[in-house]
Amino acid sequence: MFAHNKRLQYTVRVSECNPGLANLMLEQFGGPQGELAAACRYFTQHLAEDDPGRRDMLIDIATEELSHLEVIGTIVAMLNKGSKARLSEAVESEAELYKSISGHGNSSHVTQVLYGGGPALTNSSGQLWNAGYIDSIGDPAADLRSNIAAESRAKIVYERLINLTDDPGVKDALGFLMTREIAHQQSFEKALYSIQPNFPPGKLPGKPEFTNVYFNMSSGEGDARGPWNNEPTFEFREAEVAVDGGSGTPELGMTSEELEVADQAAARLASNPTTDPVTGAMLGMGQTPAGVLGGSGDLPAPKASAKKSAAKSDRTL
Amino acid sequence: MFAHNKRLQYTVRVSECNPGLANLMLEQFGGPQGELAAACRYFTQHLAEDDPGRRDMLIDIATEELSHLEVIGTIVAMLNKGSKARLSEAVESEAELYKSISGHGNSSHVTQVLYGGGPALTNSSGQLWNAGYIDSIGDPAADLRSNIAAESRAKIVYERLINLTDDPGVKDALGFLMTREIAHQQSFEKALYSIQPNFPPGKLPGKPEFTNVYFNMSSGEGDARGPWNNEPTFEFREAEVAVDGGSGTPELGMTSEELEVADQAAARLASNPTTDPVTGAMLGMGQTPAGVLGGSGDLPAPKASAKKSAAKSDRTL
Amino acid sequence: MFAHNKRLQYTVRVSECNPGLANLMLEQFGGPQGELAAACRYFTQHLAEDDPGRRDMLIDIATEELSHLEVIGTIVAMLNKGSKARLSEAVESEAELYKSISGHGNSSHVTQVLYGGGPALTNSSGQLWNAGYIDSIGDPAADLRSNIAAESRAKIVYERLINLTDDPGVKDALGFLMTREIAHQQSFEKALYSIQPNFPPGKLPGKPEFTNVYFNMSSGEGDARGPWNNEPTFEFREAEVAVDGGSGTPELGMTSEELEVADQAAARLASNPTTDPVTGAMLGMGQTPAGVLGGSGDLPAPKASAKKSAAKSDRTL
Amino acid sequence: MFAHNKRLQYTVRVSECNPGLANLMLEQFGGPQGELAAACRYFTQHLAEDDPGRRDMLIDIATEELSHLEVIGTIVAMLNKGSKARLSEAVESEAELYKSISGHGNSSHVTQVLYGGGPALTNSSGQLWNAGYIDSIGDPAADLRSNIAAESRAKIVYERLINLTDDPGVKDALGFLMTREIAHQQSFEKALYSIQPNFPPGKLPGKPEFTNVYFNMSSGEGDARGPWNNEPTFEFREAEVAVDGGSGTPELGMTSEELEVADQAAARLASNPTTDPVTGAMLGMGQTPAGVLGGSGDLPAPKASAKKSAAKSDRTL
Amino acid sequence: MFAHNKRLQYTVRVSECNPGLANLMLEQFGGPQGELAAACRYFTQHLAEDDPGRRDMLIDIATEELSHLEVIGTIVAMLNKGSKARLSEAVESEAELYKSISGHGNSSHVTQVLYGGGPALTNSSGQLWNAGYIDSIGDPAADLRSNIAAESRAKIVYERLINLTDDPGVKDALGFLMTREIAHQQSFEKALYSIQPNFPPGKLPGKPEFTNVYFNMSSGEGDARGPWNNEPTFEFREAEVAVDGGSGTPELGMTSEELEVADQAAARLASNPTTDPVTGAMLGMGQTPAGVLGGSGDLPAPKASAKKSAAKSDRTL
Amino acid sequence: MFAHNKRLQYTVRVSECNPGLANLMLEQFGGPQGELAAACRYFTQHLAEDDPGRRDMLIDIATEELSHLEVIGTIVAMLNKGSKARLSEAVESEAELYKSISGHGNSSHVTQVLYGGGPALTNSSGQLWNAGYIDSIGDPAADLRSNIAAESRAKIVYERLINLTDDPGVKDALGFLMTREIAHQQSFEKALYSIQPNFPPGKLPGKPEFTNVYFNMSSGEGDARGPWNNEPTFEFREAEVAVDGGSGTPELGMTSEELEVADQAAARLASNPTTDPVTGAMLGMGQTPAGVLGGSGDLPAPKASAKKSAAKSDRTL
Repeated sequence: MFAHNKRLQYTVRVSECNPGLANLMLEQFGGPQGELAAACRYFTQHLAEDDPGRRDMLIDIATEELSHLEVIGTIVAMLNKGSKARLSEAVESEAELYKSISGHGNSSHVTQVLYGGGPALTNSSGQLWNAGYIDSIGDPAADLRSNIAAESRAKIVYERLINLTDDPGVKDALGFLMTREIAHQQSFEKALYSIQPNFPPGKLPGKPEFTNVYFNMSSGEGDARGPWNNEPTFEFREAEVAVDGGSGTPELGMTSEELEVADQAAARLASNPTTDPVTGAMLGMGQTPAGVLGGSGDLPAPKASAKKSAAKSDRTL
Repeated sequence: MFAHNKRLQYTVRVSECNPGLANLMLEQFGGPQGELAAACRYFTQHLAEDDPGRRDMLIDIATEELSHLEVIGTIVAMLNKGSKARLSEAVESEAELYKSISGHGNSSHVTQVLYGGGPALTNSSGQLWNAGYIDSIGDPAADLRSNIAAESRAKIVYERLINLTDDPGVKDALGFLMTREIAHQQSFEKALYSIQPNFPPGKLPGKPEFTNVYFNMSSGEGDARGPWNNEPTFEFREAEVAVDGGSGTPELGMTSEELEVADQAAARLASNPTTDPVTGAMLGMGQTPAGVLGGSGDLPAPKASAKKSAAKSDRTL
Repeated sequence: MFAHNKRLQYTVRVSECNPGLANLMLEQFGGPQGELAAACRYFTQHLAEDDPGRRDMLIDIATEELSHLEVIGTIVAMLNKGSKARLSEAVESEAELYKSISGHGNSSHVTQVLYGGGPALTNSSGQLWNAGYIDSIGDPAADLRSNIAAESRAKIVYERLINLTDDPGVKDALGFLMTREIAHQQSFEKALYSIQPNFPPGKLPGKPEFTNVYFNMSSGEGDARGPWNNEPTFEFREAEVAVDGGSGTPELGMTSEELEVADQAAARLASNPTTDPVTGAMLGMGQTPAGVLGGSGDLPAPKASAKKSAAKSDRTL
Repeated sequence: MFAHNKRLQYTVRVSECNPGLANLMLEQFGGPQGELAAACRYFTQHLAEDDPGRRDMLIDIATEELSHLEVIGTIVAMLNKGSKARLSEAVESEAELYKSISGHGNSSHVTQVLYGGGPALTNSSGQLWNAGYIDSIGDPAADLRSNIAAESRAKIVYERLINLTDDPGVKDALGFLMTREIAHQQSFEKALYSIQPNFPPGKLPGKPEFTNVYFNMSSGEGDARGPWNNEPTFEFREAEVAVDGGSGTPELGMTSEELEVADQAAARLASNPTTDPVTGAMLGMGQTPAGVLGGSGDLPAPKASAKKSAAKSDRTL
Repeated sequence: MFAHNKRLQYTVRVSECNPGLANLMLEQFGGPQGELAAACRYFTQHLAEDDPGRRDMLIDIATEELSHLEVIGTIVAMLNKGSKARLSEAVESEAELYKSISGHGNSSHVTQVLYGGGPALTNSSGQLWNAGYIDSIGDPAADLRSNIAAESRAKIVYERLINLTDDPGVKDALGFLMTREIAHQQSFEKALYSIQPNFPPGKLPGKPEFTNVYFNMSSGEGDARGPWNNEPTFEFREAEVAVDGGSGTPELGMTSEELEVADQAAARLASNPTTDPVTGAMLGMGQTPAGVLGGSGDLPAPKASAKKSAAKSDRTL
Repeated sequence: MFAHNKRLQYTVRVSECNPGLANLMLEQFGGPQGELAAACRYFTQHLAEDDPGRRDMLIDIATEELSHLEVIGTIVAMLNKGSKARLSEAVESEAELYKSISGHGNSSHVTQVLYGGGPALTNSSGQLWNAGYIDSIGDPAADLRSNIAAESRAKIVYERLINLTDDPGVKDALGFLMTREIAHQQSFEKALYSIQPNFPPGKLPGKPEFTNVYFNMSSGEGDARGPWNNEPTFEFREAEVAVDGGSGTPELGMTSEELEVADQAAARLASNPTTDPVTGAMLGMGQTPAGVLGGSGDLPAPKASAKKSAAKSDRTL
């Protein structure tokens, strides 16, 4: 069960209202690397986790991420507080309000008009948060790696926001949030490497003949070698088709009834390769023979058509 | 530039058509851990990558994932080939076709009716693929970790599909695809650890006083200790508010004009805590005093109301 | 700041594993009326709320909804626990596993294959949760009504799940969750009616001549009258165009330069109403005059075409 | 069956083209509180409604909302008309067109480039409309409350748009649309309260011991009391775990076979709490002992590493 | 199998970095008419295509579209290269970085903050790409028409981008990409008309009495006639209900048990048309009789209420 | 303005309730080829259309599609009517209700539990409708082609549904709806070819040297020739890089300041190709030298590790 304390985990001090900055901050509220995604990620993993250590760690961190969601959401709410009231009370002229809402060079007009200045579960561009951001699949050797990566990403996005902010209180709180991603990443790393072996993840081993092969699928100037495609880990091979030694062509067992119906469909829908059919595009270029359509009104007269072509070509690429 | 060879990277052999199995396979075609996501992930990273080694590696692997997308898509197409023709040609009675489409215990009816048996960019439940599945953020120390995690997840999903398949040819091809995830993960690992230092990712260091703290946010039976919250990496601390030593209460500088408008809004919208208002829910329970509404027709007579209540309560929870 | 206690708000007792039932339960975990939506709804509202009473109420209820998310998620996790282990360890044959995953008549195959039996933030059909489910707009007279409606909907969905469940422990826990929606709705009702006036919401009054009009936009047998379109609240009027007394035709001031460019575009793109052009559909029916295309190979011979038509018409509607 | 009259329900008069304003107006065309959502909401409810009065009311209002969609869409189309032609005909230089499309401080560049100035079913930020905006669940006591709330929200968004518009004709038409939301809300209220009892919605009563309890889940300065958590409606209780009197710990009946497999999975995937493993993060900080890797080329020399650390720390938080 | 050559299909030359322009270019990278959609469209169709000519054509064009995705993505990456480095290295002050990111009048702040300047699979407004953009349904007579239309749309969007770009190298590359859409459209047209007959698509003929009818569903000034509703193709008829000659009222066979339960539900949920219930809206306007609520504290005193009303009406519409 | 007549455009007769069939029908209600998409497509196009003939045609057809949405929605509602009442009233045991909801082999459980048996704006798999299904871009030569294709697709999906239905009344109504797609397609074809020229769409001509080239991007057995890549329309060329005759390598002008910062970022983030770093995957396989970690507890003893490996390999691929 969750409980809430009305004091924040970290004190937020905002110097002045700034809806444009508020909008950027949404990236870590309702964006893909934001705190809602983090909290949901660890909370849902914890529910199905049976290992006592990981289960405890996941709910500890999920709970802290919820508390971070509150911190970043509080920042957004405060940065928006002035504009929220102004639009709601309409104390300025329409032209002034319009100008104030359209001048931030970002999507803050959405935050104002649609969400009334409240923190919305969108990224800084108004894209709705969706659960596709969460990549948990219920295997710890995979999920812990996903969590490590997620913390790395969140750290970077916080760093970018810090680089864009000159409000010292906002910067300070963002610094705390960024730091905690570093700490969490370390916890997930420790938990991952406490599983031995953890690579490859899962239970099935790979096919040995392909586990340590690197295929050079892209060729040309720029080809490079390094430990990611070198001995001792890798055998470097040029790209080749049908690496299994087979035909490279799919084979399918069908019943005779299926074959018959499939043939019937194929015959009905065949594109005849030996014709040169008149097409809609040809009609659209006026390429049907003049006498065909029989009436003067049927197609634009050649002259008009020519004029239009001319009009079209007076601007060349 | 890409080029295509009509032979597959790995030969696909399918014993017999099976639209239900086809549908499960969509998980790795248009699902979040599938090959389209993988190809898009590495291809887009490569475009903005300046490091020559990583750039080459990313496009090598992206191109191989595209080739895997072709392998898994070919499996789907072949498993669906019989039912595709049958529905298109309608050679069976409606009842038989309906039965054949409704009996797989999954969403294969969608694949048949909407996509006509073609491989669709959805997961096995018909959820449309979306780019939120791709978590690249343009920093290699984060993106390589994301790639490592993505390969781990894909490996696991392939393992599950292998466990569900008894067609030996499908199993064999899935085994190849699964194995390549293992190889790719190793390449990304090598590339990551070739960056030194790579932790913490990014350029800004954390706040030292919080970088190695573990907060015990969840308490009670089940609390556990391990390397993820122990010395030497971590200082274990109980959860506390305002860890910065401040008030834990947000502070905001507003202009006097902003304050005034905010106060005006607050006054207009205050919920008066000292009343006990009649509410819609009370109206909905018939809790307004009998004499209030003045006319006999206004509300259902008490008797009828009682009868309805009775009817409602004859099934208890 | 949030804290977590490892004991649930309500004890969950599940008689036996049942992945099909688990899947239905997702409706209230990651579905539109589920607990994540509820928690996010109230939590985000609370962040921007200045009224002290509402702010406190919103965070109280948000925290409880998070605790309910834990309860329903725990139910899902336990119902899935057996199948999760079976698929992960692959102790059965592929055919048995396939059968076990395909027989629930719902999307539980997704939960198993993609999410490994963990509670996913999807509804029972695998649709990813998205923030479009949350309709908060930052005005209390609107948001409280939205909350009242949301609690009503959640109550109904729980009732349906209860009607489908015969596991007594699951039924009991669902009954608790359903009950709390009733309690929460009452709180939101009290808070709404503590704002006076709260109708119409917002600050701007309506145009008096249209505030109490009911337009009869649909005619025919089935027209009905009741308090929703009757005196004393409503003036009942038949549908009419241009109720403002104007032309009903849009009017726009354009600059002469804009007019000129618009005319140029219109001329270029005009559909000539006086022709009867040959179309792609006509080509597709073989309706161009026989002599037009000049060569025998260009179009299928009439005979073949007739045969195909015949083939097509042997099944009439 | 629907029929259409070419005159609008309300005459639209637009003073001059303004693509930035057009974009804001999209909020009520393809946004979550917009007219498409409203029309779809009532139209779909009406299809499954058997009560004659509600069925008629729902289709009356749905039809009017479609007519409003036409009004707001006409406003968008006219505001965009000039820029649509300019971009289509390219009568200005590229630099001028680019400037004209990039200067509105909102997403109007999308409307122009992607939709060619036509009204798009997106909100003002380009977010695609999705059916998750519609919350109908097929129970009138819930759906009517949802409709009441939806009308309230739409009223507020119109009010905000009016506050941002100084084109008198646009303002006038928006005023009409806003007013109709007030009228519709009243109809839905009348229809809801014509059902008696309508609270709680649905047929199952709640558990009496929890129907009127308010749990104080959030504590600390800011706790407030009011009718929403006071007598006579509510019993105010502090948060507590396991309010059912049980253990608060989930209980599950598993078969012995399930237990065995689950144990096997747990053993395979256990995180060992008694180790202190070397982790990837440690490798990323260069924390493995110098002698381990045996060759001078394996890891960056300490000196280089130190330099990089220094470089990283020259900007402190 | 795919292979990659590190040289582009068309040489990209970018004069200078310009993140605002980069953002517009995303429209053809991750937008609905962009190259990823095109590549996925043709690639997935090819997988299920059995006709040898179309199968080959589809994979040829799919592979070229992938190569175009690389071209447009390279343009985006280069236009962003400067700002990517600046934000990553934070060599400027926060205020300068903030200004640089907020001044483009489009969503480039998202590209920078979230994606770090890498090409993202979103449109120019940050909307995530989703597979709903792909409309393939597995029938060639429909899919080829969809492809023809898709090429037309892509051609237009490129034309608009060209009109907005004055960087000669970007313009040149966009011109190539636009031109190839023209070529591809012609291929799809040829393939479509090589199927004879191809109209109507599919196997079932239409009901002859409705195949060539045009219903005039919209009436009033603006009604127009042309070949799309004229003889010889069409019979022009006024809109009418129940064109089948039936009642126009749905008829349903239900079992007596179903009827009984449906009646029970209807009775329970009936809206009584003969009452005039007090509603929540009335409570919200203070319209309940003064004496009803019995206590002085229950509702705001009339005077206060009047004052608030006054405050609300001081701004008229 | 729209008006509604309570009689349907086509009489719907349903023999008996069938929620499984209802679910399939959703494909044309809230699916991508369904009637909502059609109505929205033509309605939004009409709003921005200035050509009088097309404007009238678009609103005529949009209005008819709305009327079709009503027909298909009525079918869904009637097929669901029995199960809707049963679940709402819970007249059967939980086990019977669960069985009835889980046995349709499709997503009808969602329709029942979440939408209460009402027609939902989802496809037959529960995927929410989204506006990405609508591809209008505001140019008639493109949009009319999109409409032609959309009608073709809808025709096919109706044909498939007809093939799956043996209820004669449903079949009859579906036949009408399918037929109208044929009629509408013909109208759009006539309108398209009334624009001359209409190919290529838009105003800019293509680069002549690439307008009629076909690149053979895919090679190998299966290469085919036909009118889509043959003379006289096409020049057939083998795939080649840098078809512009340039380097095929991107070129970018950067300022010296940008270069410097980019170099700084590159240096900081370089992957060193000359090392062979220890990686996380190696740690995960226990591949670090035994003596490295210094303490007996740090890593699992070799023996245990061996045992686990053995356990993992007892199931080979």
